[in-house]
Amino acid sequence: MNAYSERIKNLKPSAIREIFKHTADPAVIPFAAGNPSPEAFPAEKLAAISADIFREEPVTALQYAVSEGYPKLREWVKEDLTQKDIFKAGDDDVIITAGAQQVMELATKVLCNEGEAIICENPSFIGSLNSFRSYNAKLVGVDIDEQGMLPEKLEAALKANPRTAFIYTIPNFHNPTGITTSLQRRKDILSLAYKYNVMIVEDNPYSELRFSGLDIPSVKSMDKKGHVIYAGTFSKTIAPGLRVGYMCAPEGIVQKSIAALQCSTVHTNILAQMIAYRFMTGVNLEEYLEELRLIYKRKCNLMLNSLKFAFPTAVKFTEPEGGLFIWGTLPYSSDGDSAGFCKKAIQHKVAVIPGSAFSIKEGEKTLSFRLNFSTPTDEQIERGVEILAKCF
Amino acid sequence: MNAYSERIKNLKPSAIREIFKHTADPAVIPFAAGNPSPEAFPAEKLAAISADIFREEPVTALQYAVSEGYPKLREWVKEDLTQKDIFKAGDDDVIITAGAQQVMELATKVLCNEGEAIICENPSFIGSLNSFRSYNAKLVGVDIDEQGMLPEKLEAALKANPRTAFIYTIPNFHNPTGITTSLQRRKDILSLAYKYNVMIVEDNPYSELRFSGLDIPSVKSMDKKGHVIYAGTFSKTIAPGLRVGYMCAPEGIVQKSIAALQCSTVHTNILAQMIAYRFMTGVNLEEYLEELRLIYKRKCNLMLNSLKFAFPTAVKFTEPEGGLFIWGTLPYSSDGDSAGFCKKAIQHKVAVIPGSAFSIKEGEKTLSFRLNFSTPTDEQIERGVEILAKCF
Repeated sequence: MNAYSERIKNLKPSAIREIFKHTADPAVIPFAAGNPSPEAFPAEKLAAISADIFREEPVTALQYAVSEGYPKLREWVKEDLTQKDIFKAGDDDVIITAGAQQVMELATKVLCNEGEAIICENPSFIGSLNSFRSYNAKLVGVDIDEQGMLPEKLEAALKANPRTAFIYTIPNFHNPTGITTSLQRRKDILSLAYKYNVMIVEDNPYSELRFSGLDIPSVKSMDKKGHVIYAGTFSKTIAPGLRVGYMCAPEGIVQKSIAALQCSTVHTNILAQMIAYRFMTGVNLEEYLEELRLIYKRKCNLMLNSLKFAFPTAVKFTEPEGGLFIWGTLPYSSDGDSAGFCKKAIQHKVAVIPGSAFSIKEGEKTLSFRLNFSTPTDEQIERGVEILAKCF
Repeated sequence: MNAYSERIKNLKPSAIREIFKHTADPAVIPFAAGNPSPEAFPAEKLAAISADIFREEPVTALQYAVSEGYPKLREWVKEDLTQKDIFKAGDDDVIITAGAQQVMELATKVLCNEGEAIICENPSFIGSLNSFRSYNAKLVGVDIDEQGMLPEKLEAALKANPRTAFIYTIPNFHNPTGITTSLQRRKDILSLAYKYNVMIVEDNPYSELRFSGLDIPSVKSMDKKGHVIYAGTFSKTIAPGLRVGYMCAPEGIVQKSIAALQCSTVHTNILAQMIAYRFMTGVNLEEYLEELRLIYKRKCNLMLNSLKFAFPTAVKFTEPEGGLFIWGTLPYSSDGDSAGFCKKAIQHKVAVIPGSAFSIKEGEKTLSFRLNFSTPTDEQIERGVEILAKCF
C-alpha cells in the first residue's frame, strides 16, 4: 500500500542519472557530469585541516551543532558577501546549507504553495527544476538569448501567472547553456520583480570560476527592496562532496529556512563546515582561485578549439566566460531532437546530456545538448570531441 | 515582500532551542539537550579513519556521490538490518540520509498531502512533529501509558481521520518519556495499520542504547505487508555531528525518497558516510556498544537514584531501559503546567525542557518535563538534581 503524495507521485530521478550509470564505465568519456575537476581538489590541504580539527576541537566536530550553521563560517560568508554588496547588515541573514541545491529546496518550501508558479530560464538546471517540482510548483519557462532571459517574455509570464512565488535565475555561466546574463537584463529582471511584487532566487554556484570577461554585479547586490534570495556554494571552490553551501536573504526568509532545515537535516555536517572555514581563511584565496580559473580556462579553451576544428560551422556552441558547461546545438535531426545523437555518442563511449533533460516542459524536444569540460582529462577532451563529430 | 507559504508561515523554531541559548552558559547544568555523551565519542579512532580516507581515496571523499548513499555503507546497513529481520531482500531498499530526522522529512514529503493526518504518540519528539508541521500535516495525538500507545485510542484516531498518511512511533526509549512500547502494543499498532490501510513510520534512534531489559522485536521486523518505514541513525552510536542516518522501507518509497533527496541535499556528506562505514566495520562492534551502554546505564542510574533521594514520592519519574531521557511529572502546580518549575530551574542554572514542548497541540499544558542524563557530567547530575528538588 503506497499512496504517494500528489507532490511526489510524478517526480522522477534526474534524467542525468540514467546517463551517469554509463559513466561508471571507465572507458566512457565523461562530458555528461557537472563535476568540478578532480585535479583541482586541494586534497592534501583538506587532509591536514581535518587532522588539525580532530586534534584541536573534536567535540565541536562531532556533537550536535546549531541549525543556522557553524558560527565562524557564517561570519566568514557574511564578510565575503558584504564585500560583494550582497549581504546587507540589518536586513539580511545567512544560513549554511548542504550545498546550494538545498537553498532551492528551502526557498520553495518557504515561499511556494502547491500550484503556484516558479518562472525559470528555459532551459534550466534540472536539479533545481526537480526541487520546484517536488513541491508541486507550476514551472513556467522563459526563453533566453545570449544575454539571458528575454524581458518581454518574462513580463508576459508574470502577467499570465499572478500567483508566482519567485523568478529563478542562474545569471553567471548558466547551467546548462554557459550563458551569462548581461547587466541590463539583470536590471530588467529586478525591475519586473518589483513591478509584479515577486521574489527572485539567484543561483550563483560558479561566480568564482570566471576565467574571461569582466564580473557583472549580482542581482542581489543591486536589490534595494529585499526581493532577492542568493545561493552560493563551496562545491566548486573546494569540493562538492563536502555538501556545504549557503543562502543569503532577507532575515525573515532565513529564519523560516532555519526552522525548516532544523526539522530536516537538523544542521549541515559540522566537520565539513569547519573544514570549509579553515580552508577559506587558511589559503591565499586570490592565488588559489586564480589557479583554479586557469585549470578551467585551459580545459574550456581546449574543448572549444577541438569542437571548432571537428564540427562544421552549422553546429553551434556557446562560448562561456566561466563555469563548467558548453551548450551545443545541432542544425537539424530527423526528429528535431538531440536524443538520437546523444544515444549514438554513448554507444561510442562518449557521455553527453540531451538538452531535453533541462527543458521546463518534461520531454520537450530540442536540438541542443550539454557538454562538461571540467571532469574529463585533456586527452579525453580531444578524443571525445573527435568521436562526437563522427557521431554527427 | 515576504509572503510565506501556507505550510511554513506558522512553523516556529523548536522551543528547545530557546532553552539551548541558556546552555551556552557553562555555568548552566545541561539536563535539556538530547546530545549523546561527549565522553563516549570515539574521537581518536575517527581522526585516524579520516586520515586514512584522505590518504587512500581523497577523490571519492570530495567528489559528488550518488544520492542513495555510499554503496559500502548502504550494503553494511542492509546486512545489519537483515540480521535484525528489518531489511527484507526483494521488497525493501535503503537510502542513507543526513540523520534520522531527514527520514521523517522525506517520509512526510513522499506520503503526506497537505491537510492529511499523521497520528503520533502524545507527547512526541518535537523535531519530528515540526517536520510533519512543515508539510502542513494535521497532527493527531494518541495518549500513551507505560506500555506505549493505547490501542483503543489509536483506533479511534484512525476512525476519525480516514485521510491518515501514517502512524509515527518511537517504540524504544521514547523521546521525551523514555517509555518502551511492549510487544503486544507493537502488534496492536501493526494490526491497526493493516486494518485501516495506513503506513507506520518507526523511529528507532536509540535501539543500540538498551542498557537493561530485553530487546523487543521492531515493528518493521514483524511487518509482512510492506507497511513500515524504519529510521535508524549513527548519531547515538558514533556521533551526531556526522549527520548520517538511514531509511529502510519498501522499495518504491525509498526510490521516491531518493528522487526527493536528490533535489535537496543531492547526497549525504560523503566523507561522513565513509567514516561511518570504516568505523562500523573496523571496531569490535559488540564490545564498543557494550562500553557505550555501560556509560549510559551508569549515568541513568545516577540520575534516577539522585531523583529518588531528592524528590518526594509524589513527583513521578519514568525508569527507561535505554536511550537518553527520563520524564518527570509534578503532582500539581498553580497553573497545571510545568513551565513555572522549568523557569525557576533555569534561573537557578539548571536547564530542563517543559513537557509542553512535546505536546501534539502546541502550548497544551502538562505537569511533565524532560531530563537528559547523557550530556551532564556525574557531578552535574548530582548537583543539578539537588537544585531541581529545591525549585520544587
